[in-house]
Amino acid sequence: MAHVLDEFISQPASDTEVFYKRPLPDSCIAFSSKEGKTIFEEALLSGHMESYFKLASQFRTQDEPAFCGLSTLVMVLNALEIDPGKVWRRPWRWYHESMLNCCVPIAVMEKEGITMDQFIFMAENNCLETRLTYVDETASLEAFRAVIQKYTKQDESVITLSYSRSVLSQTGDGHFSPVGGYHPSRDLVLILDTARFKYPPYWLPVSLLFEAMQAKDNLTGKYQKFILYVT
Amino acid sequence: MAHVLDEFISQPASDTEVFYKRPLPDSCIAFSSKEGKTIFEEALLSGHMESYFKLASQFRTQDEPAFCGLSTLVMVLNALEIDPGKVWRRPWRWYHESMLNCCVPIAVMEKEGITMDQFIFMAENNCLETRLTYVDETASLEAFRAVIQKYTKQDESVITLSYSRSVLSQTGDGHFSPVGGYHPSRDLVLILDTARFKYPPYWLPVSLLFEAMQAKDNLTGKYQKFILYVT
Repeated sequence: MAHVLDEFISQPASDTEVFYKRPLPDSCIAFSSKEGKTIFEEALLSGHMESYFKLASQFRTQDEPAFCGLSTLVMVLNALEIDPGKVWRRPWRWYHESMLNCCVPIAVMEKEGITMDQFIFMAENNCLETRLTYVDETASLEAFRAVIQKYTKQDESVITLSYSRSVLSQTGDGHFSPVGGYHPSRDLVLILDTARFKYPPYWLPVSLLFEAMQAKDNLTGKYQKFILYVT
Repeated sequence: MAHVLDEFISQPASDTEVFYKRPLPDSCIAFSSKEGKTIFEEALLSGHMESYFKLASQFRTQDEPAFCGLSTLVMVLNALEIDPGKVWRRPWRWYHESMLNCCVPIAVMEKEGITMDQFIFMAENNCLETRLTYVDETASLEAFRAVIQKYTKQDESVITLSYSRSVLSQTGDGHFSPVGGYHPSRDLVLILDTARFKYPPYWLPVSLLFEAMQAKDNLTGKYQKFILYVT
């Protein structure tokens, strides 16, 4: 079952309707806005942007509207400097979405995205150790925040999340993104959203993100999850 | 005459020799290293990272080894929020390398890169106003530094450069990159290099960059240039 079709879902664009990005909802603060820059500076000084630099070095736009899972994984693999052991463009070994076809043909992923199971399978098949946590109705906001707080202060591991865009008042629904940083006193988290043709990177409240992760996925009927990668 | 073949030039890799990145020379400080993070924080507090945020939001890996010019231009177009007026992937209007084929077929650019004239033509053909300055033997380091200082304190315009990698002790030669920021007391400039499969983003001395821009291009025999984009 596809999980990451979000760029097509809940925005029944006609065949002729096209967009130049979407307005970022008020719940989100754009990374490059004046306020976003202030938040970044304060977060940096707080020590919770340690996780930012490796990921920012590999921040990318997903090559296809359904590739949020694939592109998030490519970001993580290149940020954590995993050598794929195979050539992308001669003479370079490097990760690209087109090389993550170990369980589903790329043409199928272009149409249907990937499931969380496929996401994890591909990560582990490419030398990443993963720790999966479901955010269901028994989950604790405090425990979630503690993970965000802990892992934004280091750069050996990366947190990726799946969440419901609709809870954030964004168009679409189930979506994958890496976490870029944290602002402690305002309790904001930085999302490095790979659908950059739609939304820029943004800060949003941890509590709202938590809510967006508690929403069941429309397609799979499952709870959202977050994954911690450890090399 | 091709200008951006650098990823192939001066590294006569055999058909079987392949690489996972290249060691960053001592003249350059990696963006995500401990020292790089300190430089970033100090530069941010100095006010010379205003130019960083929009570019970082669109930082990307060039899709082909010869695409440094094309990918630098795509970064600038998306960072400055130019609406291409045509669809990339339905329903999204967005810039991608594959859409910058107004003067040379993409297949040719994949093999040969682009010249500076083509680079400028494509920029202006996509609604960017450009200001071109050659860095020849009459150029002044102080004047170059003053431009870097001025335009890293704002985010309406973007500086892109062409320079000789070999002067930086990097493999390859002529290369295009956007400027991400500036550290005044250490006189370092941040280069957001799109060949991320080869080098990470890096800080380097303005004086060395200036020297790398004074070198004549191996292929065209012309001096390097820098370009300022104004929307």
